[in-house]
Amino acid sequence: MRILILGADGYLGWPLCMYCSQQGHEIIAVDNYLRRNMCRELDCQPIAPIPNLARRAEIWREVSGHDVPIYIGDIADYRFLKGVFEQHNPDAVVHLAEQPSAPYSMIDRDKAAQTVSNNLIGTLNVAYAVRETNPDCHLVKIGTMGEYGTPDIDIEEGWLEIEHKGRKDKFLYPRQASSLYHTTKIQDTDLLWFYVRTWGLRVTDLMQGPVYGIATDETALDERLLPNFNYDEVFGTVLNRFVVQAITEYPLTVYGNGSQIRGYLNILDSLQCIHLSLLNPAKPGELRVFNQIVETFSVNDLAAKVKEAGSTLGYDVKVNNVKNPRVEKEDHYYNPTYSGLLELGLRPHYLTTEVLADMFRLVCKYKENIRREMIFRGVSWK
Amino acid sequence: MRILILGADGYLGWPLCMYCSQQGHEIIAVDNYLRRNMCRELDCQPIAPIPNLARRAEIWREVSGHDVPIYIGDIADYRFLKGVFEQHNPDAVVHLAEQPSAPYSMIDRDKAAQTVSNNLIGTLNVAYAVRETNPDCHLVKIGTMGEYGTPDIDIEEGWLEIEHKGRKDKFLYPRQASSLYHTTKIQDTDLLWFYVRTWGLRVTDLMQGPVYGIATDETALDERLLPNFNYDEVFGTVLNRFVVQAITEYPLTVYGNGSQIRGYLNILDSLQCIHLSLLNPAKPGELRVFNQIVETFSVNDLAAKVKEAGSTLGYDVKVNNVKNPRVEKEDHYYNPTYSGLLELGLRPHYLTTEVLADMFRLVCKYKENIRREMIFRGVSWK
Repeated sequence: MRILILGADGYLGWPLCMYCSQQGHEIIAVDNYLRRNMCRELDCQPIAPIPNLARRAEIWREVSGHDVPIYIGDIADYRFLKGVFEQHNPDAVVHLAEQPSAPYSMIDRDKAAQTVSNNLIGTLNVAYAVRETNPDCHLVKIGTMGEYGTPDIDIEEGWLEIEHKGRKDKFLYPRQASSLYHTTKIQDTDLLWFYVRTWGLRVTDLMQGPVYGIATDETALDERLLPNFNYDEVFGTVLNRFVVQAITEYPLTVYGNGSQIRGYLNILDSLQCIHLSLLNPAKPGELRVFNQIVETFSVNDLAAKVKEAGSTLGYDVKVNNVKNPRVEKEDHYYNPTYSGLLELGLRPHYLTTEVLADMFRLVCKYKENIRREMIFRGVSWK
Repeated sequence: MRILILGADGYLGWPLCMYCSQQGHEIIAVDNYLRRNMCRELDCQPIAPIPNLARRAEIWREVSGHDVPIYIGDIADYRFLKGVFEQHNPDAVVHLAEQPSAPYSMIDRDKAAQTVSNNLIGTLNVAYAVRETNPDCHLVKIGTMGEYGTPDIDIEEGWLEIEHKGRKDKFLYPRQASSLYHTTKIQDTDLLWFYVRTWGLRVTDLMQGPVYGIATDETALDERLLPNFNYDEVFGTVLNRFVVQAITEYPLTVYGNGSQIRGYLNILDSLQCIHLSLLNPAKPGELRVFNQIVETFSVNDLAAKVKEAGSTLGYDVKVNNVKNPRVEKEDHYYNPTYSGLLELGLRPHYLTTEVLADMFRLVCKYKENIRREMIFRGVSWK
C-alpha cells in the first residue's frame, strides 16, 4: 500500500513512517516543522536530540534499507499538498499534521488563531486533495478522546442513536471539548463528515487518548530514530512528563485533586491502531470512528504507578497537587466504549510497572538534557 | 444601549443599524465590504444600486438625525477589531460578519478556505475581543437553521436532553449541515460554546431560517437606504429570487421535487428578533439558542404562493423543477420548535399574498436592473 503521512516529523508521525515502511508499505512523508518551530519559540526541546526529517530518513534507509521520500511544506498551502498527491497517488493518507497541544492553543489569541487556521485549513485541503486527485483514497485522521469531554452518559464509539419524542435518528456523538485545541478536532470532524456525506469520501477518525512511551521496535535499531519526546507542560503528554519529573526528582504535577479519568495507550498501540485502520479501510461514504485507547486511569492512578515503578529503581517519587490551571471537571462520570480496534485485531500493551521501568531506563540516558524550569509554567485556561 | 454591529453593510446588517438606532440605541457599524467584493467577483449585483456604507450612514443621518459611526476593516484583523471595542466599549455586539452564501462555499477550494477562515477566525476574534475588553458584553451571533439539517427527530431550540443506557445529560442539539457554509456555522458555535464554558461569556445564537423581504420602516424613509437585495443563485435567498424570477418571466427554479421544508421569516421579523435578544441578554456563562423562524413551507409552497401573488398583479408565473444542484434530502421529516422568541415578545409578520404583492411592487421598480443570465448558474455540490 502507498501511504502518505502528513505530520511525519511528529511524536507519532516519525515512528509511524518507520513502522509502516517496515510492514512493507511505501511511505511518503510530509511535514513543515511546525512542532519544532513552536517548541523553539517556547524554548521547550524534546529530551533527546532529533535529527531533521531528511537526516532521519537517511538514517532509516541505512538501518532498514527502506526509502522514505520526504517533502518539507505546509499542507495549508493547497498547491503544495495537491502536488504531492498528484505525484504519488497514495492509496491512503494519514493526517497527523495538526497543532497538537491544548495548552499551546490557550496561551493567547494569536496561538488560538494559528491552531484554528492550521488545523481546519489543513484538514479542508486534505479533503479537497483526496477529492480532486483520487476520491477512493482512504483518509485516516487522528482525533482525540478529548472531543467527547466528560459527559454524564456512556461514551460510545463515535455515533449515538437518539430516541426523542417517539422518533429515532443516529448522529455523531455530541462533543464538547475542554480546550481550544480539542475544539478544533471537533470542527475538523464536522468538516470531514460534511464532505463524506456530500462527496462519498472514505474516512476513519481515530479518537485517541493521551499516548505515552518513547521506544518502538524501529527506534531500537538506532537511538537517533527516537521520537520527539517532550517533557514540558505544553507539548509533553501526562505520563511522559511524570516519568521525566520522577527521574529529575521534581514532584509529579497532578492538576487539582487528580480524579480526572482518561483513556491511555502505549505508542506501540497507537502505531498498531493506525496500521490496522489502514489495512481495513472505511467504505466510500463512510465516516468510521474508533475510540483509540486500551485502558482508563485517573491522574492519581498514573502518579501512583510512576511512584511504584520509580521505587523499584530507587527513586523516591513525590506528588504535588498543583492548582489546576485548566477549566475541567475533576470528579466526573467516565465510561467509554473501545471495542472497534480490538475487533480489528489490536493486541494491547498495558501499562505495567515493567513498561514504566523500561521508560525510566531509556529516558534516564538523556537525563542531562532535562531542564527543570521547562517542566511546569502553569498555562492558564482563564 | 451601545451596540456594535459587525457586518453592518450586509442584507441584514444595514437594516439592523437603522432599526436599532431608530429604537434609540447608539450604533457602531463595522464592515470590510466582503459581500460587495464577492458579488463583484461573481458579477452578481443587488437589484437596487447601493451607496457605500459611509454614504448610507450620511443619508441615514440626513433622514433620521441619528449618527452611526462606521469602521471599514476586517474583523479577522484582531488589532483592528480590538481597537474598535476599546474605543466604544459596547454593551452588546451583533456578529453578522460571516461569509453568508452556501453556494459560494461550494464553488472551489479557495472559496471554501475563505469561508472557513473568514467565519472562524472572525468569530474567534470577537470572542477574544469581548473577553479582553469587557467580558460582560453580550454577543449575539447569527446562526442558521441549516445547521440542524433534516434530522428524523423533532428539532428543539438549540439543546437536547439525551437519555442513554439509563443516564441523562444535556447537549447542544446534534447538527449536520448540508453545505460547507452551514458547517462553518456549526463550527463557530463549537468555538463560542467552548469560550462560554471556559470564560463565562454571554452569548445568544440565533438559528435563523432564510429571510425574505426588501422593505423596512426605515427604508421607507429613502429608497437609497434599501438593503442589498440579491436575486442571483449565490447570494439571493429563495423567496427573494422567486419574486424576481416571477417579475422577469423566468420560470421559478425549484430544486428537485421541491418538497424540501424549511422555516422562513420576513426581514422585519429578523430585525425584531435580534432587537428582542439584545433587550433580554443571555446570562454570564450562558449560550442561549433561539430558532429564528415564524412558519415553515416547502419550496413548492413558496412557488405556489409567488404564483398566486403574481397572478393578482397580472403575472403568469411558471415553475421549472430543475435538477437539484445540491446534495440534500428532498422528502424528509421536519418539525422544529420556535417558541423562545415569541415568548420574548416577537409579533410575526406572516407570508401573505399582500406581503408578496408589496414585494413585487417594490422590486418591479428596479426591473431594468435584472440580468436574467445571473439568475441561475447551477453551482453544484458535487
